[in-house]
Amino acid sequence: MKRFLDLNDFTREEVLSLLELARGLERTPEPRALAGKVLGLLFFNPSLRTLASFQVAMARLGGNSFVISPGQGSWQLETRSGVVMDGAAAEHVREGLPVLAAYSDALGIRAFAEGKDLAHDLAESNFKLMASLIDKPLINLESAVNHPCQALADWKTLDDLAVPRTARFVLSWAYHPRALPLAVPAAALHMAALRGMEVIVLRPEGFALPAAIMERARRAAALSGGSVRETSERADALAGAQVLYVKEWGATDAYGDAAEDARLRAALRGWCVRDDWFSSAPQCRVMHCLPVRRNTAIADEVLDGPRSLVQREAYNRLPAQMAVLHQMLSS
Amino acid sequence: MKRFLDLNDFTREEVLSLLELARGLERTPEPRALAGKVLGLLFFNPSLRTLASFQVAMARLGGNSFVISPGQGSWQLETRSGVVMDGAAAEHVREGLPVLAAYSDALGIRAFAEGKDLAHDLAESNFKLMASLIDKPLINLESAVNHPCQALADWKTLDDLAVPRTARFVLSWAYHPRALPLAVPAAALHMAALRGMEVIVLRPEGFALPAAIMERARRAAALSGGSVRETSERADALAGAQVLYVKEWGATDAYGDAAEDARLRAALRGWCVRDDWFSSAPQCRVMHCLPVRRNTAIADEVLDGPRSLVQREAYNRLPAQMAVLHQMLSS
Amino acid sequence: MKRFLDLNDFTREEVLSLLELARGLERTPEPRALAGKVLGLLFFNPSLRTLASFQVAMARLGGNSFVISPGQGSWQLETRSGVVMDGAAAEHVREGLPVLAAYSDALGIRAFAEGKDLAHDLAESNFKLMASLIDKPLINLESAVNHPCQALADWKTLDDLAVPRTARFVLSWAYHPRALPLAVPAAALHMAALRGMEVIVLRPEGFALPAAIMERARRAAALSGGSVRETSERADALAGAQVLYVKEWGATDAYGDAAEDARLRAALRGWCVRDDWFSSAPQCRVMHCLPVRRNTAIADEVLDGPRSLVQREAYNRLPAQMAVLHQMLSS
Repeated sequence: MKRFLDLNDFTREEVLSLLELARGLERTPEPRALAGKVLGLLFFNPSLRTLASFQVAMARLGGNSFVISPGQGSWQLETRSGVVMDGAAAEHVREGLPVLAAYSDALGIRAFAEGKDLAHDLAESNFKLMASLIDKPLINLESAVNHPCQALADWKTLDDLAVPRTARFVLSWAYHPRALPLAVPAAALHMAALRGMEVIVLRPEGFALPAAIMERARRAAALSGGSVRETSERADALAGAQVLYVKEWGATDAYGDAAEDARLRAALRGWCVRDDWFSSAPQCRVMHCLPVRRNTAIADEVLDGPRSLVQREAYNRLPAQMAVLHQMLSS
Repeated sequence: MKRFLDLNDFTREEVLSLLELARGLERTPEPRALAGKVLGLLFFNPSLRTLASFQVAMARLGGNSFVISPGQGSWQLETRSGVVMDGAAAEHVREGLPVLAAYSDALGIRAFAEGKDLAHDLAESNFKLMASLIDKPLINLESAVNHPCQALADWKTLDDLAVPRTARFVLSWAYHPRALPLAVPAAALHMAALRGMEVIVLRPEGFALPAAIMERARRAAALSGGSVRETSERADALAGAQVLYVKEWGATDAYGDAAEDARLRAALRGWCVRDDWFSSAPQCRVMHCLPVRRNTAIADEVLDGPRSLVQREAYNRLPAQMAVLHQMLSS
Repeated sequence: MKRFLDLNDFTREEVLSLLELARGLERTPEPRALAGKVLGLLFFNPSLRTLASFQVAMARLGGNSFVISPGQGSWQLETRSGVVMDGAAAEHVREGLPVLAAYSDALGIRAFAEGKDLAHDLAESNFKLMASLIDKPLINLESAVNHPCQALADWKTLDDLAVPRTARFVLSWAYHPRALPLAVPAAALHMAALRGMEVIVLRPEGFALPAAIMERARRAAALSGGSVRETSERADALAGAQVLYVKEWGATDAYGDAAEDARLRAALRGWCVRDDWFSSAPQCRVMHCLPVRRNTAIADEVLDGPRSLVQREAYNRLPAQMAVLHQMLSS
């Protein structure tokens, strides 16, 4: 594997094989598998799980890593092409990224959506430019509309809990004080569809996922025997659901318009997941990629209760990423 | 050892055994003792010695470490319970800490006192909440009123210099432009008392250490054959002293009241340790945990002179912590 | 080797021997050469290549490293002597540096020029103070007027490209929105002179390199059979040049005077290197230490074209520094 940028680049069978490798590394550590290998980690945005779990993944496999955070100890990096660089950025990604790649056996890059122009973000223009500059193995640590490491860990979590392949998986919007990117909802939707689940996207009016993201998931579902539909009716979505995957995201009807986004979400504080959401789905488990704002997106009672899988998901980042690194870098 | 949170959790004999292990690791390195082990380091506050020495300690024992600094590359972490998280913090310690623990073989956490409510800080409410969330070995890298790693290194320093067990140990307040926490004075006081020394706390009016801290030290002294008293008279304290342990801290009579604290300390600029402090204690050595403000808390002439043990103390952080990690993590 | 602070501390033969070692490590990795060794890295200023390449260099040789950035997670460090420390800095380098040295097998320090007083910067007063506090092997990661790691990597780049020893090497000033330090131009000038090249410094009026820097280079050239002269005429300098080494720096006629510096450079936006600079030097290669501002100092067409050696220079930081570390730390 040279690149792990998008779960959509892999067949269902290839994903299952990665998950098998992840379980194998859990059972039988390979503390020398990546001896002498170096992973460069470039974070344009904050991180806790990704930052920690990739460093630990390399250490557990006997390898090394280093972290670069532009603007925090490292130069701010320009991404626009053709620009006269007389502003804050001291370096262009066209220089900086090949340099980091030259020092490393593989790179991971985190670069959130700009959140201004939906078409630009959907096209992954920024990440694709950066990927085009790198001739080493590359991992997407979260891009504008993707987060394949999270999706792989979530799939493993569903398998660990023996959630049936065809179970109902509800991806629900939740309240957040401001617009967040589409990366995790898009990745979780695609993952559940590719797994073959009955996927329902539950979201308020104004927050429908973009057609391109829905279409991609429908194609994955078609290949895997699953299905994808969307609704704004909670009762409709949740009846019989086995998994509620919670995520906050911005108003797609007002993408990049902070004032209109704020207006649209002002009435939606009720979209904080509480125990009373589950009257028609008593066995339903709750997933969230973290970080989550307590009592804003999900109530304490749910996060601290037996439905919550958030710790299992976060833990699974480690073996899932170890599998990716192992397949990418072991000899 | 599962936790190293407070020297008071250990008997005098257990501490002596840790120090013996530290000396053993100095003589005979064990570069593979912690091979494959990972230490997570969580810093809510700045650090130089702790940050460097724990990373080096793991490296010298063949293990690995990673650093997370909330608000600097990682999400700001909320610690209050039950709060509606619509402010700056993106994540709660109830999520973040178990995640980091899941990736690690042990965690270290630094979280200074809030400095608002003395009872809250004395109760270590914040650190105890965090400790309760973690089911892995845990090290206190400095909490509201404790700093056991510093205390252990300081004890080793006294032993290295062959300071007699029953020698006079003066813990003296010193000037600083603003209030600092009670962690180091409380830890140093307890350490010297548990070592069995004749301990005198020298501090201006308004800056007495809280009764709970003094009582704890008196109980430790009673077990070890030492003694603890306090005074505001420098001449009384220093006569015949063999060690002057210098530390800046806030006005306990005005805890959390910055204006009153500033008023109380305004007249105390003379509490900068100079050579003329030692006329009645010519052999007295000077200790300080660092960082220290030169010519504010301690004059150049003392820090650069033969009395100073500050470099030895800082160096001893490394073998002392290697002993803790070794006892915690080696198989 | 105990110290790698200045290429001028080494003979031409010693440099050639280091470069031979660098090439040897490229051909034949030594993944255990520095097993158990720890390099401390202290960055007073931002970095990308130095930060990444030193961590990777230690990892590739089997050693470890840690990073301290004063003011970013670590205390701000005071460097002035005798000062009453009641300002922002919590610690003095007189304490902090020996502590870090005590934990490490070698230290690297980056501390840019203050850019206020030319004589002070030329004397390397700040770096020399810090070096005097450290009794361990020490590497200059860029000081006020030196950058020996860059110089060594650049020399290797010239050798890799088989640039003749006596070829014309033009060090040219280029435009930048504000004054930058003299470290890289001084180091590159000295390197090319010591290599024995025909060196020409091309710079506008007001930006001549200080006499002390020019003199040092002339002495190196005299020893190596090279030459050094300066001009402000581009056509004169570039005719037949085989290397154009581009660098931005501040107005030496107005050192430390930002307003006058800005006035002097306002008319010099034309000093952005473009393809049309090379009509009389068709084979000329372009070097730059990076970071570079595109279309400000060097145009896209040059950086993206076949003349550019900037990636090779950046890559060569790794083997060059591995050679330094190997000679310094291997048993």
